[in-house]
Amino acid sequence: MKIIAEKINGTRKRVAEAIKNRDAAFIQELARRQAEVGATTWLDANAGTAPQREPEDLVWLVETIQAVVDTPIALDSANAKALEAAIKVVKHKPLINSISLEPGRMAVYPIVAENHCPAVALAMDEKGIPKTKQERLDAVGKILDKTRPLGIADEDLYFDPLAMTIATGQENALLFFDTVREIKKSFPKVHITCGLSNISFGMPARSFINRTFLALAMEAGMDCAICDPNNQDIQTTILATELLMAQDRHCLKFTRAFRNGVFGKPV
Amino acid sequence: MKIIAEKINGTRKRVAEAIKNRDAAFIQELARRQAEVGATTWLDANAGTAPQREPEDLVWLVETIQAVVDTPIALDSANAKALEAAIKVVKHKPLINSISLEPGRMAVYPIVAENHCPAVALAMDEKGIPKTKQERLDAVGKILDKTRPLGIADEDLYFDPLAMTIATGQENALLFFDTVREIKKSFPKVHITCGLSNISFGMPARSFINRTFLALAMEAGMDCAICDPNNQDIQTTILATELLMAQDRHCLKFTRAFRNGVFGKPV
Repeated sequence: MKIIAEKINGTRKRVAEAIKNRDAAFIQELARRQAEVGATTWLDANAGTAPQREPEDLVWLVETIQAVVDTPIALDSANAKALEAAIKVVKHKPLINSISLEPGRMAVYPIVAENHCPAVALAMDEKGIPKTKQERLDAVGKILDKTRPLGIADEDLYFDPLAMTIATGQENALLFFDTVREIKKSFPKVHITCGLSNISFGMPARSFINRTFLALAMEAGMDCAICDPNNQDIQTTILATELLMAQDRHCLKFTRAFRNGVFGKPV
Repeated sequence: MKIIAEKINGTRKRVAEAIKNRDAAFIQELARRQAEVGATTWLDANAGTAPQREPEDLVWLVETIQAVVDTPIALDSANAKALEAAIKVVKHKPLINSISLEPGRMAVYPIVAENHCPAVALAMDEKGIPKTKQERLDAVGKILDKTRPLGIADEDLYFDPLAMTIATGQENALLFFDTVREIKKSFPKVHITCGLSNISFGMPARSFINRTFLALAMEAGMDCAICDPNNQDIQTTILATELLMAQDRHCLKFTRAFRNGVFGKPV
């Protein structure tokens, strides 16, 4: 299971302030805490959405993060200028977050292709988030029609089927699981990701919903999540699900995590 | 999701003592605590395995439980004499736990049939717990070959595919999920149950394994569990899984449980 650690996100008020004020200490503390979890694959870096400032802000964010941790970065932007600027300073091959069929994001495809980067791809079409499984599958197909001629390998793509909250539709989680299974069946080499907490937006007791959703989504075939890597419910659910799905050889990861206190103090 | 509350079990030392000493207060406290959880469908009553004492002990156990709670009882015995004696005193239609293909349990089939009781059926053959999915499916088929001619309805049977601990076989949970799916596909009307904690026997951090196993088993088709109904991890996982599987109309059970503090103090 891969994790895109979500906390350095300029759409969050406190992070936006830190970016604006060049508060490196605040950003670096977020980077350190998220990177110290072994499970973190990429640290998301989102500099906010102000088009004029974004290139400069994203470069500052990347350099600020890289000054204290060595974890690869997910460049979270739809702005080609910001991505191009950030790619020049990023140390490790970044994940690009994200491509989609939205007209504004077309310039991101060649950046992914030229830099041989993995990328998140949103399973939405020009009109927004589709209502049905078939429309999402169609969006995945249309994106692959663009990525394959550019030489982007299917295995470098992390499709996000865009979970919508259970609060507005009782079938939304089932729709998500079904969509994941269908995408994996039709395009076996692609990865599946999602923003984990979207499923519970507007609901009470969200962490309980999120952790159960995570286990069921992993069973359906999701192999990457955009989430808070420091959340114990998330850590323990990933460990237990991998254990139960026979993805943890000799139970080594699980028992090591136990000894390291991930489940609480060993007794 | 149905729950068979597991704590009144004479194979546990403290309960065995209480039965021997006719310590009604101890048994009644276990009964009250388990029954106060709305999710409890049956209170398991297991009087231990001493063949001479079992009929008398099971009758005492049933009467002791019924004196304080009104929850239906699961008569947990392979002893036809004990079951016949207990059925005479039990107020509500009991669940019989259990039938199987073991030669010693053949006398239990007519008791289930004559009293029109639901029953747990162990998916094992004369030689013990099968190693493969196919052998377990065969055992289910052989049990149905006995129950159907007796007029026992498939929908009254709760098949236990017998989860074996992940500690002795990395594939054991996957084997369980596969077996559940195959049983439901071949015999859609039967129910599926299991002793929830078996999957983690010998492992550390068992409650984390059990709760994740529960969600994945429910997704596979398990609709009943033999477990501790007072365990918060179990309660919250059932609520979240039913919510995500679109089995909780308008999220009513989930939000009511939240207001009642099942997830912790509402904030």
